[in-house]
Amino acid sequence: MNKKYAIIVAGGSGSRMKSDIPKQFIEVGGLPILMHSLKRFKEAEPEIELILVLPESQFEYWNQLCEKYPTVPHKLVKGGNTRFQSGLNGLKTIENEGLVAIHDGVRPFVSAEIIQESFKIANEKGTAVVSVPSKDSVRVNGQAIDRSTVRLIQTPQTFQISLIKKAFETEELSTFTDDASVAEHAGFTINLIEGSYENIKITTPEDLQWAEIILGKG
Amino acid sequence: MNKKYAIIVAGGSGSRMKSDIPKQFIEVGGLPILMHSLKRFKEAEPEIELILVLPESQFEYWNQLCEKYPTVPHKLVKGGNTRFQSGLNGLKTIENEGLVAIHDGVRPFVSAEIIQESFKIANEKGTAVVSVPSKDSVRVNGQAIDRSTVRLIQTPQTFQISLIKKAFETEELSTFTDDASVAEHAGFTINLIEGSYENIKITTPEDLQWAEIILGKG
Repeated sequence: MNKKYAIIVAGGSGSRMKSDIPKQFIEVGGLPILMHSLKRFKEAEPEIELILVLPESQFEYWNQLCEKYPTVPHKLVKGGNTRFQSGLNGLKTIENEGLVAIHDGVRPFVSAEIIQESFKIANEKGTAVVSVPSKDSVRVNGQAIDRSTVRLIQTPQTFQISLIKKAFETEELSTFTDDASVAEHAGFTINLIEGSYENIKITTPEDLQWAEIILGKG
Repeated sequence: MNKKYAIIVAGGSGSRMKSDIPKQFIEVGGLPILMHSLKRFKEAEPEIELILVLPESQFEYWNQLCEKYPTVPHKLVKGGNTRFQSGLNGLKTIENEGLVAIHDGVRPFVSAEIIQESFKIANEKGTAVVSVPSKDSVRVNGQAIDRSTVRLIQTPQTFQISLIKKAFETEELSTFTDDASVAEHAGFTINLIEGSYENIKITTPEDLQWAEIILGKG
């Protein structure tokens, strides 16, 4: 079986959350959000190697959290100025071939099934990007479009390592909104797989309450 | 000031909700969802006339609910086979000029501010359609698009009555995903206004739990 990695990227501040601490460190269900994210990957794939990409300014705080809470082993890597640079910094630390899932640190409720499926499809096809349909109608540049053509993109976005490394051998473009768009720019086909409405990106104070509910269901 | 109406449309079954009763009748915070929706409009605009469009097969059940719960005065109108037909049936009952907000019955958490703003902008410009940015990246037909160009469309969708009646003088097209798309097809400009992430469309069992939270905040 191919070796598996996950790069968990977090770089947020607390601004939209109206919080003094960056949102990835906020505690829900007794554990900082970022630790939930790491734990989900470890539970889904026990042999996985975890790479956490954080702004260097947050290393000290993170290390304090790691002393305070039970955490899973991971390699800590310095983030870049952009999401693209952070992803690249994570990729550069991987020396082997295999598969890598790149994941938003503030999506702590990704299920084991989704993680496993993303590795399975990426192994078969090269790429696997988690997505859901939109519940709302959608307009692009003000124009109505057929909702059935729309997918809202989540993470993990999982790739064969050689493929995504090759894709990142590019100058950064402003159109790179996620890792899938980098792979697509390099000419690779993006395979969308089914995500979940529970796999939320924690962005607002209301999302934190939603997070407590999801944990309560456990 | 222009006379104001709201057409609240509900036609759902309980299928996606895994519920025996249609989702609009499910109780959250002590009141059926649909009654919250009516109440929000009445509270935001005390002089408003409310028109509720429901499948005829649900009239009896609705009337029972109206005996059991405190409700606000409204006119009950028979729904059509499609969302377009239901909207049209509601519009046909309006004899005066003025403004009309058309709203999903299962969006019970629209705020007074949003309702009032939608009437204000529709009064000035003819149309006002509530929307929010997407938190997730978006793909259309599998292709990444610039997220900043995307708006997820909510309701109310508010119109000058003469304008939206004129727009509905058309054959129904499969591209009519909402009332805004009908108005747009008739050549009217759609003005998007800012909605809220709390203004959810209750669709899944998880949404019901989210609903309880939003009410708890009240």
